[in-house]
Amino acid sequence: MSKYVIGVDGGGTHTKSILVRDDGQVLGTIASGAANFQQLGVEGVKKVCQDILTEMGKKFYLSATQIACWGVGLAGAGREHDRRIVVETIEALGFAGRVIVQSDAYVALIGAFLGKPGIVLICGTGSMSIGMNQKGEIARTGGWGYLLGDEGSGYDIGRRALVAALKDFDQRGSRTRLRSKLERYFGIATIDQIIPKIYSKEIGKDQIAALAPIVFETASEGDLVAANIIDTVIVDMASLILSVAKKLGFHEETPLVVACSGSVFNQKDVLFPKLSAQVATVYPNVSISQPRFEPVVGAAIMALEKIGIQPTEDVLDNLSRFNK
Amino acid sequence: MSKYVIGVDGGGTHTKSILVRDDGQVLGTIASGAANFQQLGVEGVKKVCQDILTEMGKKFYLSATQIACWGVGLAGAGREHDRRIVVETIEALGFAGRVIVQSDAYVALIGAFLGKPGIVLICGTGSMSIGMNQKGEIARTGGWGYLLGDEGSGYDIGRRALVAALKDFDQRGSRTRLRSKLERYFGIATIDQIIPKIYSKEIGKDQIAALAPIVFETASEGDLVAANIIDTVIVDMASLILSVAKKLGFHEETPLVVACSGSVFNQKDVLFPKLSAQVATVYPNVSISQPRFEPVVGAAIMALEKIGIQPTEDVLDNLSRFNK
Repeated sequence: MSKYVIGVDGGGTHTKSILVRDDGQVLGTIASGAANFQQLGVEGVKKVCQDILTEMGKKFYLSATQIACWGVGLAGAGREHDRRIVVETIEALGFAGRVIVQSDAYVALIGAFLGKPGIVLICGTGSMSIGMNQKGEIARTGGWGYLLGDEGSGYDIGRRALVAALKDFDQRGSRTRLRSKLERYFGIATIDQIIPKIYSKEIGKDQIAALAPIVFETASEGDLVAANIIDTVIVDMASLILSVAKKLGFHEETPLVVACSGSVFNQKDVLFPKLSAQVATVYPNVSISQPRFEPVVGAAIMALEKIGIQPTEDVLDNLSRFNK
Repeated sequence: MSKYVIGVDGGGTHTKSILVRDDGQVLGTIASGAANFQQLGVEGVKKVCQDILTEMGKKFYLSATQIACWGVGLAGAGREHDRRIVVETIEALGFAGRVIVQSDAYVALIGAFLGKPGIVLICGTGSMSIGMNQKGEIARTGGWGYLLGDEGSGYDIGRRALVAALKDFDQRGSRTRLRSKLERYFGIATIDQIIPKIYSKEIGKDQIAALAPIVFETASEGDLVAANIIDTVIVDMASLILSVAKKLGFHEETPLVVACSGSVFNQKDVLFPKLSAQVATVYPNVSISQPRFEPVVGAAIMALEKIGIQPTEDVLDNLSRFNK
């Protein structure tokens, strides 16, 4: 009888889960809401997992007892102590198999490099960088959230655009087309009307992060303020990568493999060459690409390995069919 | 029979009210909580005003009908439409006299210059700048709140200190003594332990703003990262002043009078000379000082003028006795 695992990528705004057979075939996916452990706590995470299980049952006629392993990558679960709590929470759902919980960054790393050395830079609504060296040591940088960090994230880019537009309005900053574009985007007469919407949370973090493509578009039209935001962000992104490389003791002359994931890298045609050039000032042999697999697949691979199934090329081949 | 007015300075975190006789004698003060119109709405502001009235009654045996005028400066009440709502709210408290509502920034301006031209820079938990020219025209800059602005505020300085400490921890930034100082201040082993406290709001905006003195202290000990934060903040402060000066059409060669108020200027011995030098690059005849009166006194003066009492030197003399 086939075994099944669930891979979960629980992020700050969305959670993606996949049901995978032991040969790597992906039976299906489930989308659900936020699964940040720091924000939702035990009860919130429990509910998310319960819902995934219910949905899996409905869609694929599988009960909890038929799942051999849950592999979970969870935002805000960077600490061993927190992960232990989540493991117990999932086990308490009447689940007979194994449970393995790691941070969402860790499963991104597994998805990208399958346990081989490399660095992943994730820039979605938030941002962070994580890497693994030859010895299997792991280091991470960033991930401090929207108030204290998340440099290079969609939120960071969107917030910088709003600040630039407001500074233009205030006659404190340079003129920028971002101002009129954002006014049009939000359907407001003047950009200062954004203020009550921001502080009443009518416009939340996600909506601010969703402004990033406007910044790229405006920069491509020759707007210097927008271009400057992107240049600043690239320096910050490079800094996230370089910090992890330094922590892992990567030698400056050896090849450095970096995978970039997250919604901001929808703009990879602009970002990859510039980011590559920036990192190359320290690591001339850097190569930047997309990760081989999404984080949710990394979570499933982690679960498969936990029950003794090696990710052979056949298994990976099956998984990669899902990816496309 | 003497007439009485109430002056109110309603801020984002604290509200200060004074009861003033028509000769400028201050009978007493009342401290209450936040009075930001955007955050509290009509009902919240109503409650604050009701409490002030109750307290005034208890302390000074004055009923609402004996107050000839309320002069209110209110955070988040920059728009005429919002101010009109607050006026109606206060009138609905069974109050026979007049009501005049302005932004907290406006009453700061009146307190500082008594209607004469000049610019006030306010850096408390938030920041903004407001000025008046010879024609009585008013312009303001900043005040966009902690997510999009408040450059030079206590929050801005405190947040920069936390970010610098985290970047040190991350090996992304320079070493700084801010890191160990903040760890000691918060009683945590490593600075990353601040993260759950920030996002659970255990440490809020006010507590972040309260870190500003640590940054000044650390800079004075020769820490370059802390010194750099202060230098950055001074450029931002100068930019707030220069923007208002530009909007008001102040000529670069004429004297520019600036008053700085708010908790950040407890550090005026460090800030005034540096800020002065920065503004002087555009306005060589700038003079920077503390405001003559606090905003709450500005609110009372506004109320006195509304009922026809001019702020003569005798009246101001009485008011200034309160100030000290």
